[in-house]
Amino acid sequence: MGSTLNSKWLPVTSTVTVALALLSASTAVISLYFCRKKSKVLYSKIQELEISLNSCLQNSAAERQGRIRAQQDLRKALAEPKSENLEQTSYPMTPIGLVQSCFSTRNGTPRQPLLVPLARACLVFDSARVPPASLEGLVEYSHCWIIYVFHLNTNLEKLWKHPSRSKFKAKVRVPGLKGGKMGVLATRSPHRPCPIGLTVAKVEAVRGNMVLLSGVDLVDGTPVLDIKPYLPYCDSIQGAAVPEWVMVDNILAVASVNFSEGFSSSLSDCWETAKKKSLYASPDELQCLIKQVLSWDIRSLSQRNQPHDPLIKTGNGEAPNSALDSDQNQDQEASDNENSQVCHPSGDVTYHLILEGTNVAYRIDFNGNVTVENVVVSSEILNRNRNRRSFLEWRDELS
Amino acid sequence: MGSTLNSKWLPVTSTVTVALALLSASTAVISLYFCRKKSKVLYSKIQELEISLNSCLQNSAAERQGRIRAQQDLRKALAEPKSENLEQTSYPMTPIGLVQSCFSTRNGTPRQPLLVPLARACLVFDSARVPPASLEGLVEYSHCWIIYVFHLNTNLEKLWKHPSRSKFKAKVRVPGLKGGKMGVLATRSPHRPCPIGLTVAKVEAVRGNMVLLSGVDLVDGTPVLDIKPYLPYCDSIQGAAVPEWVMVDNILAVASVNFSEGFSSSLSDCWETAKKKSLYASPDELQCLIKQVLSWDIRSLSQRNQPHDPLIKTGNGEAPNSALDSDQNQDQEASDNENSQVCHPSGDVTYHLILEGTNVAYRIDFNGNVTVENVVVSSEILNRNRNRRSFLEWRDELS
Repeated sequence: MGSTLNSKWLPVTSTVTVALALLSASTAVISLYFCRKKSKVLYSKIQELEISLNSCLQNSAAERQGRIRAQQDLRKALAEPKSENLEQTSYPMTPIGLVQSCFSTRNGTPRQPLLVPLARACLVFDSARVPPASLEGLVEYSHCWIIYVFHLNTNLEKLWKHPSRSKFKAKVRVPGLKGGKMGVLATRSPHRPCPIGLTVAKVEAVRGNMVLLSGVDLVDGTPVLDIKPYLPYCDSIQGAAVPEWVMVDNILAVASVNFSEGFSSSLSDCWETAKKKSLYASPDELQCLIKQVLSWDIRSLSQRNQPHDPLIKTGNGEAPNSALDSDQNQDQEASDNENSQVCHPSGDVTYHLILEGTNVAYRIDFNGNVTVENVVVSSEILNRNRNRRSFLEWRDELS
Repeated sequence: MGSTLNSKWLPVTSTVTVALALLSASTAVISLYFCRKKSKVLYSKIQELEISLNSCLQNSAAERQGRIRAQQDLRKALAEPKSENLEQTSYPMTPIGLVQSCFSTRNGTPRQPLLVPLARACLVFDSARVPPASLEGLVEYSHCWIIYVFHLNTNLEKLWKHPSRSKFKAKVRVPGLKGGKMGVLATRSPHRPCPIGLTVAKVEAVRGNMVLLSGVDLVDGTPVLDIKPYLPYCDSIQGAAVPEWVMVDNILAVASVNFSEGFSSSLSDCWETAKKKSLYASPDELQCLIKQVLSWDIRSLSQRNQPHDPLIKTGNGEAPNSALDSDQNQDQEASDNENSQVCHPSGDVTYHLILEGTNVAYRIDFNGNVTVENVVVSSEILNRNRNRRSFLEWRDELS
């Protein structure tokens, strides 16, 4: 009976066991199948990620190289001043202010400081770089130095080029040598390796971030790098000697200056427009300025020698002898279009001078007598001067 | 018989089947286990990769930003000067020469030009920028201006930064006001918006691309931007006025200068080494220079007031009153390590001065009597001066 029982249950148990085992096996196999499939997906994702990471690392390295190179170039271009090699060390000098001058153009700008005592200018400083506190105490000095940029030099772009690529004239003409030349560093010519000018002026008043000066020889718009107080015990040298050719024919004074009959009323008319932006208190004061400026022959050498030759077109009326005088007003080679001369059919020559927004016309005869004929408003200059302060604003400091 | 056969083989077959089924089931389950484990590993690897990738992307973005900024700064720095905006117009001024001065360090460098007549310097110009022809005629002037860079300013890197990011002190201490301050532009302090200095010197000789000067107040290594002839009719102003606080306590002369017994022979010993590179003709001339330099109290104000206090360590021996004197030698705030003072156990203080490659030791008593004690060769300075020309080379021009 036992064996009958066994032989009856055994097939059932075996079948069930086998069925269960097969079931779990197939479940496991199916799970394994999916698990492997997922693994493959994960593997390929990992591969993708690794590729992305590699490419990102390469990109990062390239950006880094680019950054380092740009920074190196920047440093080289402006180089930190530790290099012994002069050619690479360049100091970027940013102007701290601008000159607002009564001389609107180089024509007429004096060739020496203090030559025209009524010549006024207002130095306007950039408040971000020169807070008004920087100027405290300056007004107690009678004079100050102005260090500026020869911004009207035509070859200014050479500053940004390699020295070997910029043409530089080592010698300039000097009038006292009748056409002969001297080394540029033995003159005050603007065409120097570093276009930095030096001049002095009388300190009239200080207001906020502005300094009012007189006796200036600077043209409107000149960028200023620095001002320093004038210290006589340092800066005034007794018995300093200069060569012969500097003494000769320095500044020519004219014989006389006269105003035409209608001049004063023309000037009063102009004054109505010009006064708002003027550094002068009245038309009379402006007329004094005009007289002072025209007391010195501001014509160029060629104009002086052949004044009635209509073929001579010297744009800026600057005499070659100025290589020794005022730093700024001596650009003989500049090709600006400041037309200062008009020839009439009669043969007379009328010259023009632009001051404080007015265009002054005058004539000069062979004996050096100046007749100031007319004055009109120069709209172009007045427009340029629209952001100026007027003399009224300075009146308090000056009284 | 069939059923007997069946009942004999059936258990065996069943067992085998069951065993195989169980085997395959367990194999499948074990495989599934390992597969899952691997999946986990892959998941965590993917997580790692994703983190790396993110961080790499961030890094790459940062590098890119850095590169773009550096390139923008580079472009800005090289920009042509057409902008009306002062802040952006920066003129790169490259020095045209360097000063080789008898004053090896700022300690001892005079506070005024021409104060020490025997103080010599050789301006060496970069021939590429200043061909010798540029200097023709300069020797006919008695004096010339030197426009230079305050290269020892500690904050020089501000030139390459945006003005708003550089700290600028609008006012500096002025000794005449006993600690009071004045606007920096009302002084000759080096810490100005544009670090440009102005001084004058006597022109002794010109040779090739070099100019020998005397009465200098410049330290060795000063970069020169420009030199200009001194024109008395422009540059010397009669009756220029300065405020009260400038006149007070300007330069202190010492009571006397004496040399110790063994000094001359010590100097002769040093001379054997120093002469090859010296701007002086003999040890006697060098001794005269030492005497001239020490005739003025070159100690700082604190050293002067408390000379025997070993706690006072004023590195550069410069007096605060110099804010009004020589442009260069007034860096009160500079932290250089020119140790000029040694305190002995006895309480005496020996000062040091480095001139022309020699280290001069001296003492000064309460009454201002200077005793020059000893001199040794300063190898560091001599090594620095190894590219110099000597006085012998100038002898022809000077005779």
